[in-house]
Amino acid sequence: MKNIYIIGVGLIGGSFALDIRQLYPNANIFGIDHSELNLTKASALGIINDVATVNDLSHADLVVVAIPVNVIVEQLPIILSNISDNTLVIDAGSTKEAICQAVKNHPRRRNFLATHPIAGTEFSGPSSAIHSLYKGQTNIICQVEETAFKLQEKALKLFDGMGMRIRYMKPKAHDQHIAYVSHLSHISSFMLGKTVIEKEKNERDIFDMAGSGFESTVRLAKSSPEMWTPIFRQNKINILKTLEEYIANLSQFKHHIENDDFDSIYQEMKSTNHIKEILKGIA
Amino acid sequence: MKNIYIIGVGLIGGSFALDIRQLYPNANIFGIDHSELNLTKASALGIINDVATVNDLSHADLVVVAIPVNVIVEQLPIILSNISDNTLVIDAGSTKEAICQAVKNHPRRRNFLATHPIAGTEFSGPSSAIHSLYKGQTNIICQVEETAFKLQEKALKLFDGMGMRIRYMKPKAHDQHIAYVSHLSHISSFMLGKTVIEKEKNERDIFDMAGSGFESTVRLAKSSPEMWTPIFRQNKINILKTLEEYIANLSQFKHHIENDDFDSIYQEMKSTNHIKEILKGIA
Repeated sequence: MKNIYIIGVGLIGGSFALDIRQLYPNANIFGIDHSELNLTKASALGIINDVATVNDLSHADLVVVAIPVNVIVEQLPIILSNISDNTLVIDAGSTKEAICQAVKNHPRRRNFLATHPIAGTEFSGPSSAIHSLYKGQTNIICQVEETAFKLQEKALKLFDGMGMRIRYMKPKAHDQHIAYVSHLSHISSFMLGKTVIEKEKNERDIFDMAGSGFESTVRLAKSSPEMWTPIFRQNKINILKTLEEYIANLSQFKHHIENDDFDSIYQEMKSTNHIKEILKGIA
Repeated sequence: MKNIYIIGVGLIGGSFALDIRQLYPNANIFGIDHSELNLTKASALGIINDVATVNDLSHADLVVVAIPVNVIVEQLPIILSNISDNTLVIDAGSTKEAICQAVKNHPRRRNFLATHPIAGTEFSGPSSAIHSLYKGQTNIICQVEETAFKLQEKALKLFDGMGMRIRYMKPKAHDQHIAYVSHLSHISSFMLGKTVIEKEKNERDIFDMAGSGFESTVRLAKSSPEMWTPIFRQNKINILKTLEEYIANLSQFKHHIENDDFDSIYQEMKSTNHIKEILKGIA
């Protein structure tokens, strides 16, 4: 792997670049981004060697597409039309159905591997890129059989070098499940932040009382609206279902409190404590 | 300070004991707990020197009451009836109105200082007690004027030694505000955990897809139901109000998605990003 193109040099793409540089010290890493500022920052930080455009992709051994999911759907066909026969293209989008659909009949479909490396922080931009962000994390690969065998192999070697755990899923199942374990968490966190900020407008001192518990639950409300709005749009149906269930559970909890049914409140929490064992499995 | 009694030798009381031992190396620290197992563990861990009962409190210079808030309301009058003139009693309850009300007319009211050190983890029991848990954290003191001047001074010296930031509030305001920045976070986290666990019953692999974002948002769902049920009961009115607002915000967000109003979704997240600046103030 000699010529690597990172499209979107933010947290996700930048962190890919840092790991790739460690694995392939002689690689030329090029950055493509609609933001000149991000490209300048990424160059200054040593994340990329040089800047490029989509027209340069015929030289690419690997293209990493790490841009908002609406732009992936729009740009991925164009990217595939610009590569060579031997180029591997991977994406890092948090949705998979619309992305796979967008290139379903593309003549270069077999150069593309649909992936979702489940890693990140609440920060964004090149300066938030970090080494080993993906180490030990799960990488969901969708429609692996649609990718050329040699390019599958190349991708798996890279992911192995980065220390990722691979799971294979269908795009539909990916989008359904990720709505629960990722998209819903973001909405619950954003709305928690909103509820408390609204209260704070009249009560300036309220945040002085916030401890690490609040900080942890509201952390995802720092996330980028540019990235998350298109995710919610593309995964609309699944997200509406999770939101419906979440609101129903909250309403039932509220109902128990209203009715002084604290035995049920206790039982709800006791059974949800099972999350301890589940989270041990994640860590 | 020579004789210290810790009532409830769990995370909160145990962590108090560890800090007190460092500040007052010659102190005798006694543990009182309804759980023999917790007392045995706390002794083995060197958190307490010996076990005691409420009848021994006449020897106490300081009593730290770190038990569930329903048991504080029940036991605090008995504790105050068992101390000497010079004993300082502090509590660590997450509600303040019911606790202050419970000892309002007690002849030893001036020996009691109502406090809420805003610190903790999602774990419980003596083995989760840690040094410096309270360092840099906020300690809310309520009705300070109801406490004898000399005992206020003693308490402030201790809190200063432990590195806590002091804030004075009325019990009513405390309970209102803490519902937003602590109690609501716990409910949002518990119900998020519940929603995902319910889904997981039929979909075993879902948690393999969970990353650090989910872990952070659901962390508080590990918390102790024994501790939290009485908090929700005592702060029922305020919690119902926060839950109503939270559910309304979630429903509105859902409504925007249903209506494909992604401009509003973007704006909601953009304005809630303000939480970044607020959290900087906390850290």
